[in-house]
Amino acid sequence: MADMMKAVVKSTAGPGLEMREVPIPTIQPDEVLVKVRAASICGTDLHIYNWDNWAASRVPPPIVVGHEVCGEVVDRGAMVKTPEVGDFVSLESHVICNTCPYCRTGQGHICENTRLIGVDRDGGFAEYIAIAAQNAWPNPPDLPVEIAVLQENFGNAVHTAFAADLRAKKVLVTGCGPVGLMTVAVARAIGARAVYATDISRYRVEFARRMGADLAMHAVDDPVVDLVREATDGEGVDVLLEMSGAPSAIDQGFSLLKPGGEVALLGVAPGPFEFDWNHHIVFKAARVLGISGRRLWQTWYQGRGLIRSGAVDLSPLVTHHFKLEEFDQAFATMSSGESGKVMLTP
Amino acid sequence: MADMMKAVVKSTAGPGLEMREVPIPTIQPDEVLVKVRAASICGTDLHIYNWDNWAASRVPPPIVVGHEVCGEVVDRGAMVKTPEVGDFVSLESHVICNTCPYCRTGQGHICENTRLIGVDRDGGFAEYIAIAAQNAWPNPPDLPVEIAVLQENFGNAVHTAFAADLRAKKVLVTGCGPVGLMTVAVARAIGARAVYATDISRYRVEFARRMGADLAMHAVDDPVVDLVREATDGEGVDVLLEMSGAPSAIDQGFSLLKPGGEVALLGVAPGPFEFDWNHHIVFKAARVLGISGRRLWQTWYQGRGLIRSGAVDLSPLVTHHFKLEEFDQAFATMSSGESGKVMLTP
Amino acid sequence: MADMMKAVVKSTAGPGLEMREVPIPTIQPDEVLVKVRAASICGTDLHIYNWDNWAASRVPPPIVVGHEVCGEVVDRGAMVKTPEVGDFVSLESHVICNTCPYCRTGQGHICENTRLIGVDRDGGFAEYIAIAAQNAWPNPPDLPVEIAVLQENFGNAVHTAFAADLRAKKVLVTGCGPVGLMTVAVARAIGARAVYATDISRYRVEFARRMGADLAMHAVDDPVVDLVREATDGEGVDVLLEMSGAPSAIDQGFSLLKPGGEVALLGVAPGPFEFDWNHHIVFKAARVLGISGRRLWQTWYQGRGLIRSGAVDLSPLVTHHFKLEEFDQAFATMSSGESGKVMLTP
Amino acid sequence: MADMMKAVVKSTAGPGLEMREVPIPTIQPDEVLVKVRAASICGTDLHIYNWDNWAASRVPPPIVVGHEVCGEVVDRGAMVKTPEVGDFVSLESHVICNTCPYCRTGQGHICENTRLIGVDRDGGFAEYIAIAAQNAWPNPPDLPVEIAVLQENFGNAVHTAFAADLRAKKVLVTGCGPVGLMTVAVARAIGARAVYATDISRYRVEFARRMGADLAMHAVDDPVVDLVREATDGEGVDVLLEMSGAPSAIDQGFSLLKPGGEVALLGVAPGPFEFDWNHHIVFKAARVLGISGRRLWQTWYQGRGLIRSGAVDLSPLVTHHFKLEEFDQAFATMSSGESGKVMLTP
Repeated sequence: MADMMKAVVKSTAGPGLEMREVPIPTIQPDEVLVKVRAASICGTDLHIYNWDNWAASRVPPPIVVGHEVCGEVVDRGAMVKTPEVGDFVSLESHVICNTCPYCRTGQGHICENTRLIGVDRDGGFAEYIAIAAQNAWPNPPDLPVEIAVLQENFGNAVHTAFAADLRAKKVLVTGCGPVGLMTVAVARAIGARAVYATDISRYRVEFARRMGADLAMHAVDDPVVDLVREATDGEGVDVLLEMSGAPSAIDQGFSLLKPGGEVALLGVAPGPFEFDWNHHIVFKAARVLGISGRRLWQTWYQGRGLIRSGAVDLSPLVTHHFKLEEFDQAFATMSSGESGKVMLTP
Repeated sequence: MADMMKAVVKSTAGPGLEMREVPIPTIQPDEVLVKVRAASICGTDLHIYNWDNWAASRVPPPIVVGHEVCGEVVDRGAMVKTPEVGDFVSLESHVICNTCPYCRTGQGHICENTRLIGVDRDGGFAEYIAIAAQNAWPNPPDLPVEIAVLQENFGNAVHTAFAADLRAKKVLVTGCGPVGLMTVAVARAIGARAVYATDISRYRVEFARRMGADLAMHAVDDPVVDLVREATDGEGVDVLLEMSGAPSAIDQGFSLLKPGGEVALLGVAPGPFEFDWNHHIVFKAARVLGISGRRLWQTWYQGRGLIRSGAVDLSPLVTHHFKLEEFDQAFATMSSGESGKVMLTP
Repeated sequence: MADMMKAVVKSTAGPGLEMREVPIPTIQPDEVLVKVRAASICGTDLHIYNWDNWAASRVPPPIVVGHEVCGEVVDRGAMVKTPEVGDFVSLESHVICNTCPYCRTGQGHICENTRLIGVDRDGGFAEYIAIAAQNAWPNPPDLPVEIAVLQENFGNAVHTAFAADLRAKKVLVTGCGPVGLMTVAVARAIGARAVYATDISRYRVEFARRMGADLAMHAVDDPVVDLVREATDGEGVDVLLEMSGAPSAIDQGFSLLKPGGEVALLGVAPGPFEFDWNHHIVFKAARVLGISGRRLWQTWYQGRGLIRSGAVDLSPLVTHHFKLEEFDQAFATMSSGESGKVMLTP
Repeated sequence: MADMMKAVVKSTAGPGLEMREVPIPTIQPDEVLVKVRAASICGTDLHIYNWDNWAASRVPPPIVVGHEVCGEVVDRGAMVKTPEVGDFVSLESHVICNTCPYCRTGQGHICENTRLIGVDRDGGFAEYIAIAAQNAWPNPPDLPVEIAVLQENFGNAVHTAFAADLRAKKVLVTGCGPVGLMTVAVARAIGARAVYATDISRYRVEFARRMGADLAMHAVDDPVVDLVREATDGEGVDVLLEMSGAPSAIDQGFSLLKPGGEVALLGVAPGPFEFDWNHHIVFKAARVLGISGRRLWQTWYQGRGLIRSGAVDLSPLVTHHFKLEEFDQAFATMSSGESGKVMLTP
């Protein structure tokens, strides 16, 4: 094995990324070395690419970016029991400490020492990545790489949709980026009576319909409130799954929520915003759940179940393929709002 | 309207039923009078027909039998706000008191003063039945009568399947009488990863397959334990939905249950039986839930949601139709184990 | 019985109240007539007295005000089974419809047709009040009137504290008006490891300490964040019970909340306000519950249990007594921030 | 440090134990070496002492017995981050694998590869014990050794009592061995309205009263059913915490359970037994929970909270002290039914 590999790197504090030759990472006794087969681009990667305030405050250059990754285990440390060399794995991006009170009580998703690959430490837009063995989730060898690469992101959708009780309920999904699209599919698969979806991209509105939304609407151009009220006999929805982070969508979603309804919030807002606390939460006796990452590792088991049973079909999600070297084009495609997931191959 | 109607009556303490002319019931201020369009036969009705120990200890002849009923509201008391005359309704069979601590805390299904139509008071194998207005659940006018008549019984399936978390889980349904068959369909609809089913009737094993079971087995002739272990990679099932009441099925089901698994019990056993409490519940950290009737009225809303969304199709369930006068033939068919639901029309 | 009674009435749209002679109300078949033994003043009553925007938009003069009431049943309608004439009852102020989907699924506290006594219809600052029988909760005959009059308001505290899991947890109560004070006591009684409390009245800070707070702080003058961090080894609190409605308290409370924490919100804010959604809810994976009224009737059973076991002692709560005629003084006392509950006697 | 230590050993398959000199254990990179300050005797130890069927089928001699242990960390492996050398720790007896699906989903208490110290591998009735670092729970340095030694056993009580919702509920504890006694105290601390307790030892009945039981009864000599019905206004109890494993107690407990009640089962029965499934679980809509070990590590946090807040006082529990050499006397005392916990000191 060579000593060097190519990697997409944020080399200095500022916009853009560059392709570099960097050393192949070495592994700790509890880590595996993964030869990357594919990676995909997340909204978070766009923030890092563009170097917005959040990125500038958190990401320490130089760093290899990318956190949605699948590949093959090519080496493992002395203490690793699973996975085995040769296994085809998808990566959980949150490397957790296993010792804080959250980790020790089944809440690793809010571990106070979490380090995120591609954000806090080197990630997977590269030929190889070293990562804690427990973060490498074994896939069937024949799982299509376009599905394997999505596991991490799919887990956000699963975590969000499983947080509420959707069974025989009417559900509104606000925001149909890739996670929102997968959430539509999950909601259908676990018994939602009806799924309504909104986005501000026509492309994604159409995509939501293909993923199973009974009603997909343009958040601005379509009369969303009227359409949802009509579809629900004037009652509104039982559950809101908020994937956009847009204050206007949050407000619209809560307005359409029935009393006693449930809300799961994955979308990240651009900043603090004004909100009608009394009518949207207190008087309505709403149950509002912040969603962060994936339940470790329950969400992975749940997602696996949905895929293997055929209840959720992720194959339409990856709409564009690029070589790792073409990362600039790939990021531009992802920014356009006219794509599903964009996949990179080393 | 005439004063008298025909009805199937348990006239004296002993086996059998007879057709009689009886007065059309009068209604209280909070009741409706329903002209029966169809009724269906439940296992409980067989017990009453055969006059077993349970029936002899509870049912007070003379009494009109039958508790699975749909029909049209033809009159209503002065205090009734809903439903309206002309509405097509399905009946909840448990008439509850609304004043005991259970009723007052959303647990009407265990009301300590419940009176069951066709068991504790006159039922619906007749041309008319009087019942509390709140027990008459309005259907869409065009709902097929073969589906409307099943709502009550379907509610047992919904209550059982909704008691556990089936999402992305492997589920075993023991007992595929009509409620078990509907439970198979509900489990699929609300996200079970796989549904395995057992019964001692070949006819019902086949029926379970048609209702969506991934694996349907004869409880005695097929090697159930081996088949389920193979289907689950040796792990067993996450959830057991027990619909048979057979001690052997209960034992087999718990043996196949994974540690930390959930069990919902609707089946009624023939009597006390020996059970391996330690291994089946304590060491396994199982969660075991007794299921009685339907959540009033949450189960009805949930069942309605599943039917209207198309997630569950009940149309295959009614396999035999008889006129009310042919009740003896109808009961014989229901006893044969070679039927789905058997419907009676006045 | 005379035909007329004295009552405190909002006679016209505008500030203030007046004492009037009005007809003793007549009862419906499902109602009881209650001879008022005592009533107490709620924050809501202050809004009505002062005729703020909320009051002007909702309350229809002329109307008898007051919704915290206890008294004796002196008459009952023909259909009433319980309570009996002579029973000493406390009143639930929300008169619900029993027929909407919320009422029919054990969620009467969000009944879409709720009518609140003293707000939407005549209340209990009077000699008599007519109310649905199910709203009259029987007390032991010897329950002190100072405790009986608080049941309704106590139910808000019980509903809020029972919404989260407080067992062995560190809890912050923001806002120590009477409901907040009772919430401190309930939190202690159901196993909170520690209870911290804040208010902007020194009087109430002291009162909170007497009700069992481990640490009671002035929300502005004391360094609340430092004190709570110190008391919790830097970790913050597991649960926030928000009783103030003050945006600054809400922000402070969420800032002190641990990841994965629970929040129950009873306090009503003065209007929409800016909130750091990402850090306070989403990233933190918080669970936020809007609390409205009391669970009907589960909260009443729970509250009764706490009182009868001696786990909660409400006797310090009523700090001032007035005759009904002295209502102006009573309202002034309640507005001062230097009182617990203020009781009125007809 | 010497190479050898004294230890209480099951040397051959058969009744009895013997004191031996054995090598001080060596530690793995993820383990700590603990110098034992005290250990206590559990019912499980009695089974091993007496060499009953269970013991013969599971325990592999020669083995150092004992699993309730506290002591000081005197050495630690290279990979251990916490605890530190010098820490005063109590030990969790279940050494889990961290890699099976149960461990990976916050259910380590049902880890399929659990190894129990003193049962499956060397335990702590000795001068030293080696154990996985994560199993060593740091205590405050000044925690009395009589309390520190009970943490593991106390965890069974906490796990059981926290499994149900006891708040403002009436609770029956069947079986007042040491775990049952601690369960009585926990139930009180987390808001039970009333706690009733039974045992077949008068000594323990009295002890239960001292631990906070409102009503403590001899299971055979006292009219338990009548007394509990009288204490509950004829209603029975909301929750049953079954700590005895005696089929007669289980039957009595379920008979006294209200419809919709909750049951947590920690007691281990002598074998399969006959049970009235229909009336005790199905018709009653009971919720029955098998309890195994302690939630890892949630139960430890919960127990710590109860002790540090003073809500539970464990100091009366240890009633007898012996030197390690006096183990035969200690076991005889524990067998007598006339003791709380019996403590051994090396």
